[in-house]
Amino acid sequence: MLSVGILGCGRIGQVHARSLRALDDARLVAVADAVPEAAAALAATSGAEVRSTDAILAANDIDAVVIGTPTDTHYDQIHKAAVAGKAIFCEKPVDLSTDRIRDCIAAVEAAGVPFMTAFNRRFDAHFAALQRRIRDGAIGEVEIVTILSRDPAPPPIAYIKSSGGLFRDMMIHDFDMARFLLGEEPVTVQAVGAALVDPAIGEAGDIDTAAVLLTTASGRICQISNSRRASYGYDQRVEVHGSKGLLRADNQLESTVELADAAGFRRAAAQYFFLERYSGAYLGEMAAFVGAVVEGSTPSPTILDGLRAQTLADAASLAHIEQRIVSLAAE
Amino acid sequence: MLSVGILGCGRIGQVHARSLRALDDARLVAVADAVPEAAAALAATSGAEVRSTDAILAANDIDAVVIGTPTDTHYDQIHKAAVAGKAIFCEKPVDLSTDRIRDCIAAVEAAGVPFMTAFNRRFDAHFAALQRRIRDGAIGEVEIVTILSRDPAPPPIAYIKSSGGLFRDMMIHDFDMARFLLGEEPVTVQAVGAALVDPAIGEAGDIDTAAVLLTTASGRICQISNSRRASYGYDQRVEVHGSKGLLRADNQLESTVELADAAGFRRAAAQYFFLERYSGAYLGEMAAFVGAVVEGSTPSPTILDGLRAQTLADAASLAHIEQRIVSLAAE
Amino acid sequence: MLSVGILGCGRIGQVHARSLRALDDARLVAVADAVPEAAAALAATSGAEVRSTDAILAANDIDAVVIGTPTDTHYDQIHKAAVAGKAIFCEKPVDLSTDRIRDCIAAVEAAGVPFMTAFNRRFDAHFAALQRRIRDGAIGEVEIVTILSRDPAPPPIAYIKSSGGLFRDMMIHDFDMARFLLGEEPVTVQAVGAALVDPAIGEAGDIDTAAVLLTTASGRICQISNSRRASYGYDQRVEVHGSKGLLRADNQLESTVELADAAGFRRAAAQYFFLERYSGAYLGEMAAFVGAVVEGSTPSPTILDGLRAQTLADAASLAHIEQRIVSLAAE
Amino acid sequence: MLSVGILGCGRIGQVHARSLRALDDARLVAVADAVPEAAAALAATSGAEVRSTDAILAANDIDAVVIGTPTDTHYDQIHKAAVAGKAIFCEKPVDLSTDRIRDCIAAVEAAGVPFMTAFNRRFDAHFAALQRRIRDGAIGEVEIVTILSRDPAPPPIAYIKSSGGLFRDMMIHDFDMARFLLGEEPVTVQAVGAALVDPAIGEAGDIDTAAVLLTTASGRICQISNSRRASYGYDQRVEVHGSKGLLRADNQLESTVELADAAGFRRAAAQYFFLERYSGAYLGEMAAFVGAVVEGSTPSPTILDGLRAQTLADAASLAHIEQRIVSLAAE
Repeated sequence: MLSVGILGCGRIGQVHARSLRALDDARLVAVADAVPEAAAALAATSGAEVRSTDAILAANDIDAVVIGTPTDTHYDQIHKAAVAGKAIFCEKPVDLSTDRIRDCIAAVEAAGVPFMTAFNRRFDAHFAALQRRIRDGAIGEVEIVTILSRDPAPPPIAYIKSSGGLFRDMMIHDFDMARFLLGEEPVTVQAVGAALVDPAIGEAGDIDTAAVLLTTASGRICQISNSRRASYGYDQRVEVHGSKGLLRADNQLESTVELADAAGFRRAAAQYFFLERYSGAYLGEMAAFVGAVVEGSTPSPTILDGLRAQTLADAASLAHIEQRIVSLAAE
Repeated sequence: MLSVGILGCGRIGQVHARSLRALDDARLVAVADAVPEAAAALAATSGAEVRSTDAILAANDIDAVVIGTPTDTHYDQIHKAAVAGKAIFCEKPVDLSTDRIRDCIAAVEAAGVPFMTAFNRRFDAHFAALQRRIRDGAIGEVEIVTILSRDPAPPPIAYIKSSGGLFRDMMIHDFDMARFLLGEEPVTVQAVGAALVDPAIGEAGDIDTAAVLLTTASGRICQISNSRRASYGYDQRVEVHGSKGLLRADNQLESTVELADAAGFRRAAAQYFFLERYSGAYLGEMAAFVGAVVEGSTPSPTILDGLRAQTLADAASLAHIEQRIVSLAAE
Repeated sequence: MLSVGILGCGRIGQVHARSLRALDDARLVAVADAVPEAAAALAATSGAEVRSTDAILAANDIDAVVIGTPTDTHYDQIHKAAVAGKAIFCEKPVDLSTDRIRDCIAAVEAAGVPFMTAFNRRFDAHFAALQRRIRDGAIGEVEIVTILSRDPAPPPIAYIKSSGGLFRDMMIHDFDMARFLLGEEPVTVQAVGAALVDPAIGEAGDIDTAAVLLTTASGRICQISNSRRASYGYDQRVEVHGSKGLLRADNQLESTVELADAAGFRRAAAQYFFLERYSGAYLGEMAAFVGAVVEGSTPSPTILDGLRAQTLADAASLAHIEQRIVSLAAE
Repeated sequence: MLSVGILGCGRIGQVHARSLRALDDARLVAVADAVPEAAAALAATSGAEVRSTDAILAANDIDAVVIGTPTDTHYDQIHKAAVAGKAIFCEKPVDLSTDRIRDCIAAVEAAGVPFMTAFNRRFDAHFAALQRRIRDGAIGEVEIVTILSRDPAPPPIAYIKSSGGLFRDMMIHDFDMARFLLGEEPVTVQAVGAALVDPAIGEAGDIDTAAVLLTTASGRICQISNSRRASYGYDQRVEVHGSKGLLRADNQLESTVELADAAGFRRAAAQYFFLERYSGAYLGEMAAFVGAVVEGSTPSPTILDGLRAQTLADAASLAHIEQRIVSLAAE
């Protein structure tokens, strides 16, 4: 039984609280949030106590913390939690600066605490099954990975401004997925992008439509495309072309009902957004974290996975801004 | 908040316990089972007390009972629960005898207690969405309903022998679905069947493969087919042809992953069986029951729905045995 | 090289002329029609001569005749063609009377001429592939055959009146398909039907919506449903459930283009009607006929297949009218 | 009625001969080939005469020539045909050198003869329907075009060596499709590639796996990926993400038959290669050419379209070799 404290009671903190309730080997003990009402609300529905962040980090009755606070607070909390010997489950991105992530890695390694970076998509049943089949040899050697990822609607401009930009905020998930599926580290990064969805996003210095081209040392290729808008729901598709065949995972639709009439055959739109599409994945990642900590194995994805995705996001951003191919040094 | 007792701690009782745990407006207070170990096990994972069936039926701290015991015990428990003023959630079939179901109806009506017959498929998100779209006029008038329903594998022969036969045990769900989708009561029933899957089923006096043809007074048609075996998982499909179009709901597959190779494009098998396929429907039916009782509305499907499905099953059985068309009197 | 004459230059005669033009081992020599303009028009586009029906039947330079005239003329033409020693390709139905078909069988057998009944659907690439896979054991023993067949729109009332009724005019194709897929002769027939599409069809003494239930001696089941109207195009689907798996063939859509927007994912409607859907099948059946005659093998489907489908249509009609199960004697 | 001569009686010349036979407003008069047996064979099946190339180009009874000879002969034949006043239908690529294509453009413009570059995919019914729907506004403004194109198996190494390389030989079709769908000219080109399928292709100085990233002046993005090998058939997919929705066209499978068993739901492989997949497109492009010449309109795609696709292929090749982003000057 793992005793857990949640730092950050916003939307994602609430998701993790629900997951913890559903797990037999975890118990949510306390929650904290800079906004007292948010903490109180989550405490009420989850049966946990409200405590301060520092109290949670210092508590003897808490084995692990779930960090779901704003990105710029992760650094401090990771350091404190590591020193306090807590197992750490941290939302992505670990930090917008790879240097600071390296500091966190040092702190986590020095403390020897378990750490998991919350790349939820690896725990989606469909993507996980697809990756397992690659690993089991169903398509031979991986050659071309294609990732299409589109949000139903752009976030508020205020969010855009502090997001670190599309490559670091949105495509970060796809960079992790690329690494998950490629089976090799990318060594070159090319990127293009534009503000096609909303000029205000362009005025805020960001883009809303982008594509990236990655290569690995052995010549494997990955293509990623992103849009901040899709009229038909949250578009989350992956396909991998290998020497022996192709694997792909299509969208989850809102239902399997199909209507046929003079306009043709109509199926439902894709599930609206990440809370619907990845509800199972959120439960799965928490189960994996709790299970690993309880049994003493290493949780995955690791903090190094967090660093590598961030490195790719930085490279893509650089490639886009400087209009050049960015090569990544082997690490 | 509805306080609930579960009678019967087998597979389906466990499913309902899980559903109750997930609902905000219900609380599982006590469980009972003829096998003490079964009751103890469910109590342990659900946090409920073990009590005797009679103690649950007499308890002041229990508002509603979930009847998940063997079919032949339903009659007594319904009568006792009605007298005790409990809201009743009863597994299908209510009873294998329509006369005895009529007795239960009288008891329930006399007591004025809420009663819900657990036809879970009406709460499957896909079938429910399909039926809503019919009701909303998407395909005009219903003309032909086609229901294909196949289990992955037959039950043990011992189960077959006490099941009441395929029409009453398995196709009962499809009869309810037929009524749910037709929007009119069937008036004629034709049926054919054979033991094609396992001769032992035939020796036990039952069939494992069957088809039924229903008509309604206005000429609507329903075709149902059943098999006790499907190599590709639990086959649960419905389609409705109407004056303006067609609605259909396909199977839920184990994943959306598709593999393409020299053998073609392969998707996963259908979800294996009812616990997987209808996990959402089980939660949905319990939420509907609890919600209706808490807010004082009438739960649906009613006990009359239970009677009517059973009447169709009896008619199909008769049509098959006597090799004739059975007409149903208007009720 | 087979020299062919076409009797009947209507829509289906034109289809066969086009098929003959595309075949390397056939040559269309002459065409005949009761309406001179129709014959002249087909002669002009096909490069064939116009001759009288009798002249074609008597011609030394013609090896085979394609009978595409109205059903009530088939009987005479088959007899004359048989006497004249021509190979015969005859549109379905051979005749509306099974007694008269038996006469034709006698004439054809006495003359020893090749005869093919034009059940075009057996030559649809998809249905043919499906049947081949059954024959090759892909799904083990056939258990349940489901055939859904719907026209996009009803024919004119005048046509309905002389059609012999839905079972003989429309479902005749499905009866042949049932036999093609079941691998055993049906022994019982149950049927229901109504005029739901257009009351005028009911006033004309026919139905426009129907369903049939067939069984074979070993207990195999076939369900057929028909409608004279489908808003989404020509609905032609078949599925076969066997002891080891399921085979199904879905509709051919007008294109593979899919549009996703807020209304969901939309594919095209089904190909509109038989000329589009079965264009390949028409070519295939003529190729099979020509090939069989040229190489001296027996064309299939035979005239006996024509008789058996007609017998099933009669039985279904009787079952519907007399509201009873019709048993078919072994032949 | 257009009188046509075919230059080159190989595989593609035979395809065009078949198309001409099926068209009502064209007549194949003569064929020529450097290999006398090839010309004789095509003449025999098509009913055309064998003539020399020069005789065809000089003939008074020939209005148009179809150039299906090896690429390095196109230049001469185009010049001669233009001078002779023939309408010209020319296989892609017009030439491997854009300078020489510019010469051809000058010759064609000077002579004022109709010219069509045979980008057959524009005439595929599905891609054509997709592009029409873009043009009709179904998805608003085009934002991201994704083209996946994979051959079932690589060509012989000898072919590879004289092909001009993957970008000019294979991806040339996708560059034309990109222009067809983007609705704007690409202005930047990035490209990656490797020999993953067969090391011998790498030793021959070519690649067999590649991806390209294009942008247009307004920020539209196109991603193309190619492989010389796909175990599941000829993979030809296109999808276009726009401001209001998504359009995609999936592969044509060998049949619609689906088999369900313990391994899941299996559909057929994709149609094997271009002769199967684009049989309708070959007929369509010839019909478009003949129709345009007969009615005096301008055939499309034009020779300028041929030049532009070649320019993109050159740029991609350069981008790949020099590992840099290539910008295209406005033309």
